[in-house]
Amino acid sequence: MPNQKTNIILFSGDYDKAMAAFIIANGAAAYDHEVTIFFTFWGLNTLKKENIKTPIAKRAIEKMFGWMMPKSADHLPLSKMNMLGLGPKMIKHVIKKHHALSLPQLIELANEQGVKLIACTMTMDLLGIKQEELIDGTEFGGVAAYLGEASEGQINLFI
Amino acid sequence: MPNQKTNIILFSGDYDKAMAAFIIANGAAAYDHEVTIFFTFWGLNTLKKENIKTPIAKRAIEKMFGWMMPKSADHLPLSKMNMLGLGPKMIKHVIKKHHALSLPQLIELANEQGVKLIACTMTMDLLGIKQEELIDGTEFGGVAAYLGEASEGQINLFI
Amino acid sequence: MPNQKTNIILFSGDYDKAMAAFIIANGAAAYDHEVTIFFTFWGLNTLKKENIKTPIAKRAIEKMFGWMMPKSADHLPLSKMNMLGLGPKMIKHVIKKHHALSLPQLIELANEQGVKLIACTMTMDLLGIKQEELIDGTEFGGVAAYLGEASEGQINLFI
Repeated sequence: MPNQKTNIILFSGDYDKAMAAFIIANGAAAYDHEVTIFFTFWGLNTLKKENIKTPIAKRAIEKMFGWMMPKSADHLPLSKMNMLGLGPKMIKHVIKKHHALSLPQLIELANEQGVKLIACTMTMDLLGIKQEELIDGTEFGGVAAYLGEASEGQINLFI
Repeated sequence: MPNQKTNIILFSGDYDKAMAAFIIANGAAAYDHEVTIFFTFWGLNTLKKENIKTPIAKRAIEKMFGWMMPKSADHLPLSKMNMLGLGPKMIKHVIKKHHALSLPQLIELANEQGVKLIACTMTMDLLGIKQEELIDGTEFGGVAAYLGEASEGQINLFI
Repeated sequence: MPNQKTNIILFSGDYDKAMAAFIIANGAAAYDHEVTIFFTFWGLNTLKKENIKTPIAKRAIEKMFGWMMPKSADHLPLSKMNMLGLGPKMIKHVIKKHHALSLPQLIELANEQGVKLIACTMTMDLLGIKQEELIDGTEFGGVAAYLGEASEGQINLFI
Protein backbone atom coordinates (compact mmCIF):
# COMPACT_ATOMS: atom_id res chain seq x y z
CA MET A 1 0.00 0.00 0.00
CA PRO A 2 1.48 3.36 -0.95
CA ASN A 3 1.96 5.96 1.75
CA GLN A 4 -0.75 8.49 2.41
CA LYS A 5 -0.13 12.00 1.17
CA THR A 6 -0.67 15.26 3.00
CA ASN A 7 -0.31 18.56 1.12
CA ILE A 8 -0.50 21.97 2.73
CA ILE A 9 -0.53 25.33 0.98
CA LEU A 10 0.90 27.89 3.38
CA PHE A 11 -0.37 31.23 2.07
CA SER A 12 -0.34 32.99 5.42
CA GLY A 13 2.68 34.82 6.81
CA ASP A 14 1.52 34.63 10.43
CA TYR A 15 3.54 32.90 13.16
CA ASP A 16 0.55 31.07 14.61
CA LYS A 17 -0.77 29.83 11.26
CA ALA A 18 2.72 28.71 10.21
CA MET A 19 3.01 26.84 13.53
CA ALA A 20 -0.30 25.06 12.79
CA ALA A 21 0.94 24.11 9.31
CA PHE A 22 4.22 22.67 10.60
CA ILE A 23 2.60 20.84 13.55
CA ILE A 24 0.23 19.07 11.13
CA ALA A 25 3.06 18.44 8.66
CA ASN A 26 5.39 17.01 11.31
CA GLY A 27 2.58 14.90 12.76
CA ALA A 28 1.68 13.50 9.34
CA ALA A 29 5.37 12.77 8.59
CA ALA A 30 5.65 10.90 11.91
CA TYR A 31 2.75 8.72 10.72
CA ASP A 32 4.64 8.02 7.48
CA HIS A 33 2.64 10.30 5.22
CA GLU A 34 4.47 11.86 2.30
CA VAL A 35 4.16 15.51 3.21
CA THR A 36 4.56 18.60 1.06
CA ILE A 37 4.16 22.23 2.05
CA PHE A 38 3.75 24.77 -0.76
CA PHE A 39 4.73 28.28 0.25
CA THR A 40 3.01 31.06 -1.62
CA PHE A 41 2.52 34.80 -1.12
CA TRP A 42 3.23 35.83 2.52
CA GLY A 43 3.91 32.21 3.46
CA LEU A 44 7.24 32.54 1.64
CA ASN A 45 8.53 34.69 4.51
CA THR A 46 8.51 31.55 6.67
CA LEU A 47 11.30 30.10 4.52
CA LYS A 48 13.64 33.09 4.66
CA LYS A 49 17.12 32.47 6.05
CA GLU A 50 17.77 34.12 9.42
CA ASN A 51 21.00 35.78 8.31
CA ILE A 52 22.08 36.70 4.85
CA LYS A 53 25.63 37.95 4.67
CA THR A 54 26.06 39.14 1.10
CA PRO A 55 23.53 41.68 -0.11
CA ILE A 56 21.19 40.49 -2.87
CA ALA A 57 20.65 42.65 -5.94
CA LYS A 58 17.02 43.82 -6.15
CA ARG A 59 15.01 46.40 -8.03
CA ALA A 60 13.52 49.33 -6.12
CA ILE A 61 10.04 47.83 -5.77
CA GLU A 62 11.48 44.47 -4.72
CA LYS A 63 13.46 46.27 -2.02
CA MET A 64 10.27 47.96 -0.84
CA PHE A 65 8.49 44.61 -0.48
CA GLY A 66 11.59 43.33 1.31
CA TRP A 67 11.56 46.16 3.85
CA MET A 68 7.88 45.74 4.53
CA MET A 69 7.87 41.96 4.98
CA PRO A 70 9.20 40.02 8.00
CA LYS A 71 12.85 38.99 7.76
CA SER A 72 12.43 35.31 8.72
CA ALA A 73 10.16 32.77 10.45
CA ASP A 74 11.20 34.11 13.84
CA HIS A 75 9.97 37.60 12.93
CA LEU A 76 6.45 36.71 11.76
CA PRO A 77 3.52 38.52 13.41
CA LEU A 78 0.47 36.79 14.94
CA SER A 79 -2.82 36.61 13.00
CA LYS A 80 -4.63 37.82 16.17
CA MET A 81 -3.53 39.90 19.16
CA ASN A 82 -0.26 40.87 17.55
CA MET A 83 -0.29 44.11 19.59
CA LEU A 84 2.84 45.58 18.02
CA GLY A 85 4.84 42.47 18.79
CA LEU A 86 3.70 41.78 22.36
CA GLY A 87 1.55 38.83 21.22
CA PRO A 88 4.43 36.96 19.51
CA LYS A 89 6.60 37.52 22.59
CA MET A 90 3.90 36.06 24.85
CA ILE A 91 3.44 33.05 22.54
CA LYS A 92 7.20 32.41 22.39
CA HIS A 93 7.32 32.69 26.17
CA VAL A 94 4.65 30.03 26.73
CA ILE A 95 6.16 27.78 24.04
CA LYS A 96 9.42 27.80 25.99
CA LYS A 97 7.68 27.30 29.32
CA HIS A 98 5.78 24.26 28.03
CA HIS A 99 8.89 22.86 26.29
CA ALA A 100 7.01 22.99 22.98
CA LEU A 101 8.83 23.65 19.71
CA SER A 102 9.22 27.18 18.36
CA LEU A 103 8.52 27.82 14.68
CA PRO A 104 12.21 27.72 13.65
CA GLN A 105 12.53 24.38 15.50
CA LEU A 106 9.37 23.02 13.83
CA ILE A 107 10.83 23.94 10.43
CA GLU A 108 14.13 22.22 11.26
CA LEU A 109 12.24 19.10 12.36
CA ALA A 110 10.22 19.10 9.14
CA ASN A 111 13.44 19.28 7.15
CA GLU A 112 14.90 16.37 9.12
CA GLN A 113 11.74 14.29 8.65
CA GLY A 114 11.86 14.76 4.87
CA VAL A 115 8.86 17.08 4.54
CA LYS A 116 9.12 18.55 1.03
CA LEU A 117 9.18 22.36 1.11
CA ILE A 118 8.24 23.92 -2.25
CA ALA A 119 8.38 27.67 -2.81
CA CYS A 120 5.94 29.06 -5.39
CA THR A 121 8.08 30.59 -8.14
CA MET A 122 5.28 32.81 -9.47
CA THR A 123 4.78 34.67 -6.19
CA MET A 124 8.55 34.78 -5.60
CA ASP A 125 8.75 36.76 -8.85
CA LEU A 126 5.90 39.08 -7.85
CA LEU A 127 7.30 39.81 -4.37
CA GLY A 128 10.92 39.91 -5.55
CA ILE A 129 12.10 37.03 -3.34
CA LYS A 130 15.27 35.33 -4.63
CA GLN A 131 16.20 31.63 -4.32
CA GLU A 132 19.32 32.43 -2.29
CA GLU A 133 17.17 34.10 0.40
CA LEU A 134 15.39 30.84 1.24
CA ILE A 135 16.63 28.09 3.56
CA ASP A 136 18.64 25.17 2.21
CA GLY A 137 16.59 22.25 0.97
CA THR A 138 13.82 24.44 -0.45
CA GLU A 139 12.51 23.21 -3.80
CA PHE A 140 10.85 25.42 -6.40
CA GLY A 141 7.67 24.94 -8.39
CA GLY A 142 4.39 26.36 -9.59
CA VAL A 143 0.71 25.51 -9.53
CA ALA A 144 1.32 22.42 -11.72
CA ALA A 145 3.64 20.94 -9.08
CA TYR A 146 0.98 21.57 -6.45
CA LEU A 147 -1.83 19.98 -8.46
CA GLY A 148 0.29 16.92 -9.19
CA GLU A 149 0.73 16.25 -5.47
CA ALA A 150 -2.71 17.38 -4.33
CA SER A 151 -4.72 15.20 -6.70
CA GLU A 152 -3.16 12.19 -4.96
CA GLY A 153 -3.49 13.58 -1.43
CA GLN A 154 -5.79 12.30 1.30
CA ILE A 155 -5.38 15.52 3.26
CA ASN A 156 -5.19 18.83 1.38
CA LEU A 157 -5.29 22.04 3.37
CA PHE A 158 -5.01 25.76 2.58
CA ILE A 159 -3.65 27.71 5.53
CA MET B 1 -21.20 1.57 2.58
CA PRO B 2 -19.59 3.47 5.44
CA ASN B 3 -20.65 7.05 6.03
CA GLN B 4 -18.66 9.85 4.48
CA LYS B 5 -16.43 11.83 6.77
CA THR B 6 -16.04 15.59 6.99
CA ASN B 7 -13.30 17.08 9.18
CA ILE B 8 -12.85 20.77 9.83
CA ILE B 9 -9.99 22.43 11.68
CA LEU B 10 -11.30 25.66 13.16
CA PHE B 11 -8.18 27.75 13.79
CA SER B 12 -9.89 31.11 13.44
CA GLY B 13 -11.56 32.93 16.32
CA ASP B 14 -13.77 35.07 14.09
CA TYR B 15 -17.58 34.99 14.31
CA ASP B 16 -18.07 34.81 10.54
CA LYS B 17 -15.50 32.06 9.99
CA ALA B 18 -16.90 30.04 12.89
CA MET B 19 -20.38 30.44 11.34
CA ALA B 20 -19.07 29.09 8.04
CA ALA B 21 -17.48 26.12 9.84
CA PHE B 22 -20.68 25.23 11.69
CA ILE B 23 -22.95 25.73 8.65
CA ILE B 24 -20.80 23.26 6.68
CA ALA B 25 -20.61 20.89 9.66
CA ASN B 26 -24.38 20.95 10.28
CA GLY B 27 -25.09 20.53 6.57
CA ALA B 28 -22.74 17.55 6.33
CA ALA B 29 -24.27 15.99 9.47
CA ALA B 30 -27.75 16.39 7.93
CA TYR B 31 -26.44 14.37 4.94
CA ASP B 32 -25.27 11.64 7.32
CA HIS B 33 -21.56 12.46 7.20
CA GLU B 34 -19.56 11.71 10.32
CA VAL B 35 -18.41 15.21 11.19
CA THR B 36 -15.58 16.35 13.42
CA ILE B 37 -14.47 19.88 14.18
CA PHE B 38 -11.01 20.33 15.71
CA PHE B 39 -10.63 23.59 17.61
CA THR B 40 -7.12 24.96 17.79
CA PHE B 41 -5.54 28.33 18.68
CA TRP B 42 -8.15 31.15 18.56
CA GLY B 43 -10.85 28.72 17.42
CA LEU B 44 -10.91 27.43 21.01
CA ASN B 45 -12.70 30.64 22.05
CA THR B 46 -15.75 29.39 20.13
CA LEU B 47 -16.16 26.57 22.65
CA LYS B 48 -16.00 28.69 25.79
CA LYS B 49 -18.99 28.50 28.13
CA GLU B 50 -21.07 31.69 28.26
CA ASN B 51 -21.05 31.89 32.05
CA ILE B 52 -18.54 30.44 34.44
CA LYS B 53 -19.53 30.83 38.05
CA THR B 54 -16.54 29.60 40.02
CA PRO B 55 -13.26 31.29 39.20
CA ILE B 56 -10.62 29.09 37.59
CA ALA B 57 -7.07 29.10 38.92
CA LYS B 58 -4.66 30.45 36.33
CA ARG B 59 -1.09 31.72 36.19
CA ALA B 60 -0.49 35.37 35.44
CA ILE B 61 0.27 34.89 31.73
CA GLU B 62 -2.77 32.62 31.34
CA LYS B 63 -4.91 35.34 32.90
CA MET B 64 -3.47 37.85 30.43
CA PHE B 65 -4.41 35.65 27.47
CA GLY B 66 -7.84 35.22 29.09
CA TRP B 67 -8.41 38.97 29.35
CA MET B 68 -7.36 39.58 25.78
CA MET B 69 -9.41 36.82 24.17
CA PRO B 70 -13.21 36.84 23.59
CA LYS B 71 -15.26 35.33 26.44
CA SER B 72 -17.45 33.03 24.33
CA ALA B 73 -18.81 32.35 20.83
CA ASP B 74 -21.24 35.24 21.16
CA HIS B 75 -18.37 37.67 21.77
CA LEU B 76 -16.20 36.79 18.76
CA PRO B 77 -15.21 39.62 16.40
CA LEU B 78 -15.67 39.59 12.61
CA SER B 79 -12.72 38.80 10.31
CA LYS B 80 -13.66 41.88 8.21
CA MET B 81 -15.49 45.10 9.01
CA ASN B 82 -15.40 44.49 12.74
CA MET B 83 -15.44 48.26 13.31
CA LEU B 84 -15.09 48.07 17.10
CA GLY B 85 -18.04 45.72 17.39
CA LEU B 86 -20.50 47.43 15.00
CA GLY B 87 -19.96 44.72 12.33
CA PRO B 88 -20.91 41.81 14.64
CA LYS B 89 -24.01 43.74 15.76
CA MET B 90 -25.05 44.27 12.13
CA ILE B 91 -24.50 40.60 11.30
CA LYS B 92 -26.48 39.45 14.33
CA HIS B 93 -29.25 41.87 13.35
CA VAL B 94 -29.59 40.47 9.82
CA ILE B 95 -29.32 36.88 11.10
CA LYS B 96 -32.35 37.56 13.32
CA LYS B 97 -34.26 39.35 10.56
CA HIS B 98 -33.73 36.44 8.15
CA HIS B 99 -34.57 33.85 10.83
CA ALA B 100 -31.13 32.31 10.30
CA LEU B 101 -29.25 30.66 13.16
CA SER B 102 -26.82 32.63 15.32
CA LEU B 103 -23.43 31.10 16.13
CA PRO B 104 -24.50 29.86 19.61
CA GLN B 105 -27.56 28.23 17.99
CA LEU B 106 -25.42 26.65 15.27
CA ILE B 107 -23.14 25.18 17.96
CA GLU B 108 -26.14 23.81 19.87
CA LEU B 109 -27.49 22.23 16.68
CA ALA B 110 -24.11 20.65 15.96
CA ASN B 111 -24.07 19.16 19.43
CA GLU B 112 -27.59 17.76 18.93
CA GLN B 113 -26.66 16.30 15.55
CA GLY B 114 -23.71 14.46 17.03
CA VAL B 115 -20.94 16.55 15.45
CA LYS B 116 -17.77 15.64 17.34
CA LEU B 117 -16.10 18.71 18.87
CA ILE B 118 -12.44 18.14 19.72
CA ALA B 119 -10.36 20.77 21.48
CA CYS B 120 -6.63 20.74 20.74
CA THR B 121 -4.91 20.03 24.05
CA MET B 122 -1.55 21.44 22.94
CA THR B 123 -2.90 24.92 22.19
CA MET B 124 -5.11 24.80 25.31
CA ASP B 125 -1.88 24.45 27.28
CA LEU B 126 -0.19 27.30 25.40
CA LEU B 127 -3.12 29.71 25.80
CA GLY B 128 -3.93 28.57 29.35
CA ILE B 129 -7.48 27.38 28.54
CA LYS B 130 -8.80 24.78 31.01
CA GLN B 131 -11.18 21.88 30.26
CA GLU B 132 -13.83 23.26 32.63
CA GLU B 133 -14.04 26.48 30.57
CA LEU B 134 -15.31 24.64 27.50
CA ILE B 135 -18.90 23.62 26.76
CA ASP B 136 -20.18 20.20 27.78
CA GLY B 137 -19.62 17.47 25.25
CA THR B 138 -16.22 18.78 24.17
CA GLU B 139 -13.65 16.03 23.64
CA PHE B 140 -9.90 16.52 23.88
CA GLY B 141 -7.10 15.44 21.57
CA GLY B 142 -3.99 16.36 19.68
CA VAL B 143 -2.65 16.24 16.15
CA ALA B 144 -2.71 12.41 16.17
CA ALA B 145 -6.49 12.43 16.77
CA TYR B 146 -6.88 14.86 13.87
CA LEU B 147 -4.75 12.84 11.47
CA GLY B 148 -6.64 9.66 12.33
CA GLU B 149 -9.92 11.23 11.27
CA ALA B 150 -8.61 13.31 8.38
CA SER B 151 -6.87 10.50 6.54
CA GLU B 152 -10.30 8.86 6.17
CA GLY B 153 -12.15 12.08 5.31
CA GLN B 154 -13.67 12.98 1.95
CA ILE B 155 -13.86 16.64 2.94
CA ASN B 156 -11.02 18.16 4.98
CA LEU B 157 -10.99 21.90 5.52
CA PHE B 158 -8.84 24.38 7.46
CA ILE B 159 -10.81 27.46 8.47
CA MET C 1 -12.11 7.43 -15.91
CA PRO C 2 -14.13 10.40 -14.72
CA ASN C 3 -12.45 13.74 -14.42
CA GLN C 4 -10.95 14.79 -11.14
CA LYS C 5 -12.85 17.40 -9.17
CA THR C 6 -11.48 20.47 -7.43
CA ASN C 7 -13.75 22.53 -5.17
CA ILE C 8 -12.77 25.78 -3.56
CA ILE C 9 -14.77 27.77 -1.01
CA LEU C 10 -13.75 31.41 -1.34
CA PHE C 11 -14.77 32.98 1.96
CA SER C 12 -12.15 35.72 1.90
CA GLY C 13 -12.68 39.08 0.27
CA ASP C 14 -8.97 39.84 -0.10
CA TYR C 15 -7.32 40.45 -3.49
CA ASP C 16 -4.35 38.18 -2.78
CA LYS C 17 -6.43 35.28 -1.46
CA ALA C 18 -8.86 35.57 -4.39
CA MET C 19 -5.83 35.51 -6.74
CA ALA C 20 -4.63 32.30 -5.08
CA ALA C 21 -8.09 30.74 -5.46
CA PHE C 22 -8.33 31.60 -9.16
CA ILE C 23 -4.74 30.55 -9.94
CA ILE C 24 -5.43 27.10 -8.43
CA ALA C 25 -8.84 26.93 -10.15
CA ASN C 26 -7.46 27.88 -13.57
CA GLY C 27 -4.54 25.49 -13.16
CA ALA C 28 -6.86 22.62 -12.23
CA ALA C 29 -9.18 23.44 -15.16
CA ALA C 30 -6.17 23.36 -17.51
CA TYR C 31 -5.47 19.83 -16.23
CA ASP C 32 -9.08 18.86 -17.03
CA HIS C 33 -10.40 18.89 -13.49
CA GLU C 34 -14.05 19.82 -13.05
CA VAL C 35 -13.64 22.96 -10.97
CA THR C 36 -16.17 24.76 -8.79
CA ILE C 37 -15.64 27.86 -6.68
CA PHE C 38 -18.25 28.60 -4.00
CA PHE C 39 -18.37 32.25 -2.99
CA THR C 40 -19.57 32.94 0.51
CA PHE C 41 -19.43 35.91 2.91
CA TRP C 42 -16.79 38.47 1.80
CA GLY C 43 -15.77 36.28 -1.12
CA LEU C 44 -19.00 37.35 -2.83
CA ASN C 45 -17.44 40.78 -3.43
CA THR C 46 -15.12 39.10 -5.95
CA LEU C 47 -18.10 38.37 -8.21
CA LYS C 48 -19.56 41.89 -8.24
CA LYS C 49 -19.93 43.54 -11.65
CA GLU C 50 -17.57 46.46 -12.24
CA ASN C 51 -20.32 48.84 -13.34
CA ILE C 52 -24.00 48.69 -12.50
CA LYS C 53 -26.04 51.26 -14.37
CA THR C 54 -29.52 51.03 -12.88
CA PRO C 55 -29.72 51.40 -9.10
CA ILE C 56 -30.79 48.29 -7.19
CA ALA C 57 -33.50 48.56 -4.54
CA LYS C 58 -32.10 47.77 -1.07
CA ARG C 59 -33.14 48.18 2.52
CA ALA C 60 -31.20 50.58 4.72
CA ILE C 61 -28.99 47.93 6.35
CA GLU C 62 -28.30 46.32 2.97
CA LYS C 63 -27.18 49.72 1.69
CA MET C 64 -24.86 50.07 4.70
CA PHE C 65 -23.21 46.73 3.95
CA GLY C 66 -22.98 47.82 0.32
CA TRP C 67 -21.17 51.08 1.20
CA MET C 68 -18.74 49.32 3.48
CA MET C 69 -17.80 46.47 1.14
CA PRO C 70 -15.54 46.71 -1.93
CA LYS C 71 -17.35 47.46 -5.20
CA SER C 72 -15.78 44.70 -7.33
CA ALA C 73 -12.82 42.33 -7.67
CA ASP C 74 -10.59 45.20 -8.74
CA HIS C 75 -11.30 47.05 -5.48
CA LEU C 76 -10.49 44.29 -3.02
CA PRO C 77 -7.91 45.02 -0.29
CA LEU C 78 -4.88 42.85 0.51
CA SER C 79 -4.93 40.46 3.47
CA LYS C 80 -1.51 41.82 4.54
CA MET C 81 0.26 45.13 3.98
CA ASN C 82 -2.85 46.80 2.61
CA MET C 83 -1.54 50.16 3.88
CA LEU C 84 -4.63 52.16 2.90
CA GLY C 85 -4.49 50.90 -0.66
CA LEU C 86 -0.75 51.21 -1.36
CA GLY C 87 -0.27 47.44 -1.11
CA PRO C 88 -2.86 46.59 -3.80
CA LYS C 89 -1.32 49.24 -6.09
CA MET C 90 2.14 47.70 -5.63
CA ILE C 91 0.81 44.20 -6.31
CA LYS C 92 -1.03 45.35 -9.44
CA HIS C 93 2.15 47.12 -10.57
CA VAL C 94 4.31 43.99 -10.28
CA ILE C 95 1.58 41.83 -11.87
CA LYS C 96 1.69 44.11 -14.93
CA LYS C 97 5.49 44.22 -14.97
CA HIS C 98 5.73 40.41 -14.91
CA HIS C 99 2.96 40.02 -17.51
CA ALA C 100 0.98 37.99 -14.97
CA LEU C 101 -2.84 38.06 -14.92
CA SER C 102 -4.71 40.53 -12.73
CA LEU C 103 -7.65 39.27 -10.65
CA PRO C 104 -10.31 40.45 -13.15
CA GLN C 105 -8.36 38.67 -15.93
CA LEU C 106 -8.08 35.49 -13.83
CA ILE C 107 -11.87 35.57 -13.30
CA GLU C 108 -12.48 36.03 -17.03
CA LEU C 109 -10.16 33.10 -17.80
CA ALA C 110 -11.97 30.92 -15.26
CA ASN C 111 -15.27 31.75 -16.92
CA GLU C 112 -13.84 30.86 -20.35
CA GLN C 113 -12.42 27.57 -19.04
CA GLY C 114 -15.82 26.54 -17.68
CA VAL C 115 -14.99 26.88 -13.98
CA LYS C 116 -18.37 26.81 -12.20
CA LEU C 117 -18.89 29.90 -10.04
CA ILE C 118 -21.56 29.39 -7.37
CA ALA C 119 -22.69 32.23 -5.10
CA CYS C 120 -23.93 31.22 -1.66
CA THR C 121 -27.56 32.33 -1.48
CA MET C 122 -27.70 32.31 2.31
CA THR C 123 -24.89 34.85 2.75
CA MET C 124 -26.21 36.90 -0.21
CA ASP C 125 -29.41 37.29 1.84
CA LEU C 126 -27.51 38.23 4.99
CA LEU C 127 -25.29 40.82 3.28
CA GLY C 128 -28.07 42.09 1.00
CA ILE C 129 -26.29 41.20 -2.26
CA LYS C 130 -28.69 40.78 -5.22
CA GLN C 131 -28.34 38.37 -8.16
CA GLU C 132 -28.19 41.24 -10.67
CA GLU C 133 -25.08 42.64 -8.94
CA LEU C 134 -23.01 39.56 -9.78
CA ILE C 135 -21.20 38.83 -13.04
CA ASP C 136 -22.92 36.89 -15.81
CA GLY C 137 -22.57 33.14 -15.61
CA THR C 138 -22.78 33.07 -11.79
CA GLU C 139 -24.88 30.19 -10.49
CA PHE C 140 -26.64 30.16 -7.13
CA GLY C 141 -26.77 27.53 -4.41
CA GLY C 142 -26.41 26.71 -0.75
CA VAL C 143 -24.46 24.37 1.49
CA ALA C 144 -26.21 21.32 -0.07
CA ALA C 145 -24.82 22.24 -3.50
CA TYR C 146 -21.36 22.55 -1.98
CA LEU C 147 -21.51 19.22 -0.17
CA GLY C 148 -22.70 17.46 -3.32
CA GLU C 149 -19.61 18.59 -5.21
CA ALA C 150 -17.14 18.35 -2.34
CA SER C 151 -17.89 14.78 -1.36
CA GLU C 152 -16.70 13.77 -4.84
CA GLY C 153 -13.70 16.12 -4.89
CA GLN C 154 -10.06 15.09 -4.81
CA ILE C 155 -9.03 18.63 -3.85
CA ASN C 156 -11.23 20.62 -1.46
CA LEU C 157 -9.93 23.91 -0.13
CA PHE C 158 -11.28 26.69 2.08
CA ILE C 159 -9.68 30.04 1.27
